[in-house]
Amino acid sequence: MRLMRVGVLGAERPVVLDDGGRAFDLSGLTNDIDGAFLADDGIARARAALAAGALPAADVAGERVGAPIARPPAVVCVGMNYAAHAAESGAAPPEHPVIFYKHPNTVVGPNDDVILPRGAAKVDWEVELGIVIGRRARYLSSPEDAFGYIAGYVLSNDVSERALQLEVSGGQWSKGKSCETFNPLGPWLVPAADVGNPQALGLRSWVNGEVRQDSNTADMLFGVATLIHDISQYTVLEPGDLVNTGTPQGVALSGRFPYLSIDDVVEIEIDGLGRQRQVVVKG
Amino acid sequence: MRLMRVGVLGAERPVVLDDGGRAFDLSGLTNDIDGAFLADDGIARARAALAAGALPAADVAGERVGAPIARPPAVVCVGMNYAAHAAESGAAPPEHPVIFYKHPNTVVGPNDDVILPRGAAKVDWEVELGIVIGRRARYLSSPEDAFGYIAGYVLSNDVSERALQLEVSGGQWSKGKSCETFNPLGPWLVPAADVGNPQALGLRSWVNGEVRQDSNTADMLFGVATLIHDISQYTVLEPGDLVNTGTPQGVALSGRFPYLSIDDVVEIEIDGLGRQRQVVVKG
Repeated sequence: MRLMRVGVLGAERPVVLDDGGRAFDLSGLTNDIDGAFLADDGIARARAALAAGALPAADVAGERVGAPIARPPAVVCVGMNYAAHAAESGAAPPEHPVIFYKHPNTVVGPNDDVILPRGAAKVDWEVELGIVIGRRARYLSSPEDAFGYIAGYVLSNDVSERALQLEVSGGQWSKGKSCETFNPLGPWLVPAADVGNPQALGLRSWVNGEVRQDSNTADMLFGVATLIHDISQYTVLEPGDLVNTGTPQGVALSGRFPYLSIDDVVEIEIDGLGRQRQVVVKG
Repeated sequence: MRLMRVGVLGAERPVVLDDGGRAFDLSGLTNDIDGAFLADDGIARARAALAAGALPAADVAGERVGAPIARPPAVVCVGMNYAAHAAESGAAPPEHPVIFYKHPNTVVGPNDDVILPRGAAKVDWEVELGIVIGRRARYLSSPEDAFGYIAGYVLSNDVSERALQLEVSGGQWSKGKSCETFNPLGPWLVPAADVGNPQALGLRSWVNGEVRQDSNTADMLFGVATLIHDISQYTVLEPGDLVNTGTPQGVALSGRFPYLSIDDVVEIEIDGLGRQRQVVVKG
């Protein structure tokens, strides 16, 4: 089962896909796919309604695909969470999870244009496994407990402008992470039960059809359960929060590839979580 | 005129105070004081209704005071924005605004308890002028234009845990800024027109009655207009966003004062924006 939101930006409607990829209208069950829906056992209710044949078919052909969750209360990001990416960025692997935030209004649909900020010359891609929080998580007692707080997983592009992030930031990365359209998300929210092991997913990116990143979530320094447990010791995670878990090697910051230019096409995918395609446009 | 929200956490109702301090019920005009209300000329409508005598009196005696704006879409913070505070933190004054974020769920009422995170030994106070955004701000053409996008100002305590912020953070400050209850806000949202010059406000803090910070917003490195103009060049600011503009010297990080312990009482104030009082409690 996969959850989606389709329609124009800001007026998306909720849809569920069955295992055959058929789309059904969820709007009888909820107005939106958001923290309130997830915290109220929305995924279980959607699954039950789907199994009971209680949902009308939805025609989504030609519709824009929105981010699969309505604007998150927070977008929490983990930096340097793959050893080879830390190395290509000129850093040692961190001893503790490195946490920063993006403005939640950066979240857009998976195939929406990415806007090059005015004057920007160092826009970079970052394919990431996104965790969507399903229950309020505060002082979890163990990493294993974390799985009870995760609604599901999403494909996330943590787009970054490296001059803003590193050169005029005083060292605080959020400035280069929070530009308009800088977090394409989706196409789907895949419930945790339908993903299986989140530490065994291939993740890849391409620019203009040439592969850039090709790695596996098995290579994370801090896995999904460790991250959610750790964050819950110093921050209350809310239903609907998005946690971007870091990107593997193969970004432009490495010096091995050019930064993005207008008309470039970025594609990313994660096994089972779908694929995104963005065109880079003028700001 | 001043706007407030009173009532239990999560169920506050909107109130307006006239220049005599009398309270009037705003709930006939809006369900809440939030981005949608501010973007829809809510302050002008409240002022007109108040002047017309169209609002019923409100009895707020004994009520909890909530944060004066409902949970912001984002809490954007400016670091090292007073030269003497940069110096006491061991840093040079920044050449560009330093930007980081707090989880928006840190925002609580001005007199709510501050929870000491479990295991934390370095909890610190930071009195700050908070800017509340009233209109979507994107690529503003000049600092002067910024004033058209500011709904008003609030008193904000950017509570910080310095070990999480600086010692186990990999250099990204948000980890020590996003603990539960770490952003007491209010008591009032004071409309920009009622504040006058935001760069001429005294701001002070006390711990257990002893003065800690005593400065003036005139000492900001980057003033309110410069900050909003600058941020709008790389981030779209949303109605209801809170921008904390940095703290002056006199925090515990300086080494001149002890960090906060359980039962300590923190008080902060800014001229015209009211006063807060928090008790530090066990997490």
